[in-house]
Amino acid sequence: MNGVSGPVQLRVAMAQVDTRVGDLEGNAALVVEWAEKAAGDGAHLVVFPEMTLTGYPAEDLVLRESFAQASERALTDLAATLAERGLGGVAVVVGYLAHTHGAGPAPVDQVPADGDRPGDANPRRGAPRNAAALLHGGEVVARYAKRHLPNYGVFDEARYFVPGTELPVVRLHGADVALTICEDLWVEGGPCGVAGQAGVDLVVSPNASPYERAKDDLRLPLVQRRAAEARAPIVYCNLVGGQDELVFDGDSLAVSADGELLARAPQFVEHLLCVDLVLDRGRVPERREGRIGPMTVTRTVLSEEPVAAFEPRPASVAEPLSDPEEVWRALVLGLRDFIDKNGMPSVVFGLSGGIDSALVAALSVDALGADRVHGVALPSRYSSEHSLADAEDSARRLGLHFSTVPIAPMVDAFESSVELSGTAAENLQARVRGTLLMGLSNQHGHLLLATSNKSEVAVGYSTLYGDAAGGFAPIKDVPKTLVWELARWRNRYARERGETEPIPQNSIDKPPSAELAPGQKDSDSLPSYEELDAVIADYVDRDLGMAQLLERGHDPAVVARVLRLVDVAEFKRRQSAPGTKISLKAFGRDRRLPVTNRWRESLPSVREGAQA
Amino acid sequence: MNGVSGPVQLRVAMAQVDTRVGDLEGNAALVVEWAEKAAGDGAHLVVFPEMTLTGYPAEDLVLRESFAQASERALTDLAATLAERGLGGVAVVVGYLAHTHGAGPAPVDQVPADGDRPGDANPRRGAPRNAAALLHGGEVVARYAKRHLPNYGVFDEARYFVPGTELPVVRLHGADVALTICEDLWVEGGPCGVAGQAGVDLVVSPNASPYERAKDDLRLPLVQRRAAEARAPIVYCNLVGGQDELVFDGDSLAVSADGELLARAPQFVEHLLCVDLVLDRGRVPERREGRIGPMTVTRTVLSEEPVAAFEPRPASVAEPLSDPEEVWRALVLGLRDFIDKNGMPSVVFGLSGGIDSALVAALSVDALGADRVHGVALPSRYSSEHSLADAEDSARRLGLHFSTVPIAPMVDAFESSVELSGTAAENLQARVRGTLLMGLSNQHGHLLLATSNKSEVAVGYSTLYGDAAGGFAPIKDVPKTLVWELARWRNRYARERGETEPIPQNSIDKPPSAELAPGQKDSDSLPSYEELDAVIADYVDRDLGMAQLLERGHDPAVVARVLRLVDVAEFKRRQSAPGTKISLKAFGRDRRLPVTNRWRESLPSVREGAQA
Repeated sequence: MNGVSGPVQLRVAMAQVDTRVGDLEGNAALVVEWAEKAAGDGAHLVVFPEMTLTGYPAEDLVLRESFAQASERALTDLAATLAERGLGGVAVVVGYLAHTHGAGPAPVDQVPADGDRPGDANPRRGAPRNAAALLHGGEVVARYAKRHLPNYGVFDEARYFVPGTELPVVRLHGADVALTICEDLWVEGGPCGVAGQAGVDLVVSPNASPYERAKDDLRLPLVQRRAAEARAPIVYCNLVGGQDELVFDGDSLAVSADGELLARAPQFVEHLLCVDLVLDRGRVPERREGRIGPMTVTRTVLSEEPVAAFEPRPASVAEPLSDPEEVWRALVLGLRDFIDKNGMPSVVFGLSGGIDSALVAALSVDALGADRVHGVALPSRYSSEHSLADAEDSARRLGLHFSTVPIAPMVDAFESSVELSGTAAENLQARVRGTLLMGLSNQHGHLLLATSNKSEVAVGYSTLYGDAAGGFAPIKDVPKTLVWELARWRNRYARERGETEPIPQNSIDKPPSAELAPGQKDSDSLPSYEELDAVIADYVDRDLGMAQLLERGHDPAVVARVLRLVDVAEFKRRQSAPGTKISLKAFGRDRRLPVTNRWRESLPSVREGAQA
Repeated sequence: MNGVSGPVQLRVAMAQVDTRVGDLEGNAALVVEWAEKAAGDGAHLVVFPEMTLTGYPAEDLVLRESFAQASERALTDLAATLAERGLGGVAVVVGYLAHTHGAGPAPVDQVPADGDRPGDANPRRGAPRNAAALLHGGEVVARYAKRHLPNYGVFDEARYFVPGTELPVVRLHGADVALTICEDLWVEGGPCGVAGQAGVDLVVSPNASPYERAKDDLRLPLVQRRAAEARAPIVYCNLVGGQDELVFDGDSLAVSADGELLARAPQFVEHLLCVDLVLDRGRVPERREGRIGPMTVTRTVLSEEPVAAFEPRPASVAEPLSDPEEVWRALVLGLRDFIDKNGMPSVVFGLSGGIDSALVAALSVDALGADRVHGVALPSRYSSEHSLADAEDSARRLGLHFSTVPIAPMVDAFESSVELSGTAAENLQARVRGTLLMGLSNQHGHLLLATSNKSEVAVGYSTLYGDAAGGFAPIKDVPKTLVWELARWRNRYARERGETEPIPQNSIDKPPSAELAPGQKDSDSLPSYEELDAVIADYVDRDLGMAQLLERGHDPAVVARVLRLVDVAEFKRRQSAPGTKISLKAFGRDRRLPVTNRWRESLPSVREGAQA
């Protein structure tokens, strides 16, 4: 490799976009649109998120050969389209699904052994890879396959992909740019370490890193450590948007080789983040290729000539959000993308006057606008007077569509036909409400939202096919204590802006009740929500056992009670009944497809909605 | 290693038992009970199925440290108990969950790299291994960790386990016995190949191989090929029983080094299969240990002395079942184990007079006995006269509990409160039925069964929270054409035995109808079931794309229609609403626990049931 020296400049754009799973055509159009913006802004290199063309996670779509082939075609078509649109001079890094049949044979050591498995059960036929390509001048200049495949938590990449073994380095305007993908960053001595040994001027990292509370606090120090290992700046572009239960928060960033934060994008919005880099090639006197550690470094020269010197612009660094604002924006984006990507015109839910539905109402209006939101009060003989008044107050504050349907006539009809008492009678009321709401959903095309919070879901304090019914549950992962905190935060946020507080103070203040029996309160059946949520955090989120829970000072009686409720509720949470599998693929754990999924064999770019 | 020569004899028992996920104490008791039976039968070695002590698959329980530690304790306790019960002289191979903290540190190369991941996200802390141990004389003599971890179809073992690198060989009564587990058998050049190079007299293979139609046709040739590779007989013990949507069919077997089938257990029942082996040690003149290929072979001598010569008994080879009988028995066992392992006393379902519910009724009575089965006719204004008569006929033939609740009063009450038409009005009737049945379920403790078949589920021809409601769906993976075939087979089976045919001929013969609108027939909305099921088999089971489907000769109009229905129904099948994840563990893809799960932090051996 020719030695290089002296500083070179590059303007690098991170296109933090919201892709759609399965929508190859739409995602390619998004790349062209944002590459055009970046070029207009003078960028020499534009980096898109992980698996840009297919969306992420595409789950079992990855294993469908027709989809993988379509992804390969979409990539080469995209390279051509970019050149046709006059963008061939900009280097564009996009994620895609690589596949042997489309891209020449995969290296032999990447193809999983078939062993004696029957053909139909052969996993990962065609050696699918989670890949990124650098496009330039109408061509695919370099292809990288992700080396470290996360297979824990929400990730199943060992199911889908074979790991890459090559690290391509592309010389662009005299600077050596190495490609990596997401998880590769989280592994010390991984591709960033190999890049550091090989000698590069820049590492680009497309990501699909899902949101978790305070995860942004982890990202910057991580990228800083990898930059030190790579001895080069890192440009980290993350996906933004909701995909079923995941929400990707963006938070793209760039750091220098010394770990200085150069630029950072805001969370939860699409954003073009530009950073002007001055790359001192003298820092890297030696440049190697070939085998380094477990990887093979390849080098491609695209252009030796540095870009003409330009005056660097200051890059933007977004202010971090407060914890409640961060959570609120995650919930709003998750809800909006679920509804819009599934093509649903509007939502409906039961508006009881309680805090959970009042919060869901405010989230829905923030996500979709008041005109797409329908709240229905469904009072029963046990509803207190304040319930209907609070529901009306909530609807008035938000300006959403509101109606009232008393449930007594339906409940009476059931009770005249079958003898129901105790919990069965309480559940009946919730199911009559669920049936009414699903009727309105079917009649008018609204998606039904379930208003259950995480504390209820955890202990099974809800009715299957009743209040648990719905196509999406916006606050399913929000514990009750956080429900109150978010409500107070959202009202304060409104006050500070001189806007109407969206949530009735009475809904926040009153003691929670399911109102399914006379004078019923949540506290009759459950420990205090402070105690409950603390145990749930340790038992569910941290997976601690009994001994560890007691060590952490929880009340033994509360622990015993909550664990029993959580374990038994596991049964109830699986609303989608299992059924004995007898075939190659049942509709169960062997066939895992995203709910939000725009791939159609017949019509790869359909825009129509799916109705529940 | 000392050379050995001359033939030795061993009586080996395969204990094909039905374990329970999470029930360490119950499973250990099962091992003692069956080891006692095997010893009574003169066995020298007893092999149990994969992960005997924890049950299989234990899913995310594996990652819970308290559970993994309990599994290690259960193993050493079991060794002691067996000795106390006078069974210390029998070698017992049991599966368990191995864990570093319980068993000394795992070899360094088995511990996954932590990288810079935050502690809470650290996958596979404690290096859990899918393991088998040989117990003898009150001690754990050898431990083997599964090398090949399946991570496709229904399997997620890369999520849970680190692979083993050691192959222990135990000399028992002069014969060298190598331990392997399940998937190890499916890989050419895997541990069986290593055993062949090392030199052993016998390979034992505990399995948890789920049932699929005609899978038994694959097993024997597979085991025969591995025996050739191992140059030794293989004793293959498979799990039997239902676990959520999986059913394990048993079908344990033994083959000689030359591939001769020596013994085979029946499918779908617990069974002790004994085989008398004469092991010609002269076949294996050289015996190696240490590094062989990617594994390290270790040898332990337990006993050099051959057992006293005995007259070998002929072993039994079970007759294969016909395809419909095999499927029937899979469905019966899957249903029975779901109900019994979840502690449910009885089942209830809507008995409409149609073929689906008639089949579910017959399955339920075969699985649970008539006294635990409750059928409810729920006629509407659109039900034909024959419907109620056929439902009554079905109930009479089976002797199940039967009642009738006309739904008109409830439907009228809803229709007086909200305006519903078309599909919304059709769905209302199904949801009124669902609400009534759930009321009976809650009131009397029955589990509600959904009667939907695979064809309906695939195309979404059912009502969410209506006929799709239920805690278990016995024929969810049975296409409609197979529903009819099974019904005819079951009646023929009864006739051949001089018993009453359990399914009314009229239910089999009449054209299928949902009876939710006047004169409605399935054929108004769907292609013929022959066409539909053929497309489903290719699109769902075989994952073929549009081009391949047309190549296979399907009618293009039918394909276009069915694919659209299947893709859109994906949305509906996910009845458990996703909700935006904001925490370390939401109740979603990051927390995967079995429905049927007897592990309790507080009470590891509880016997009480979970109520929906």
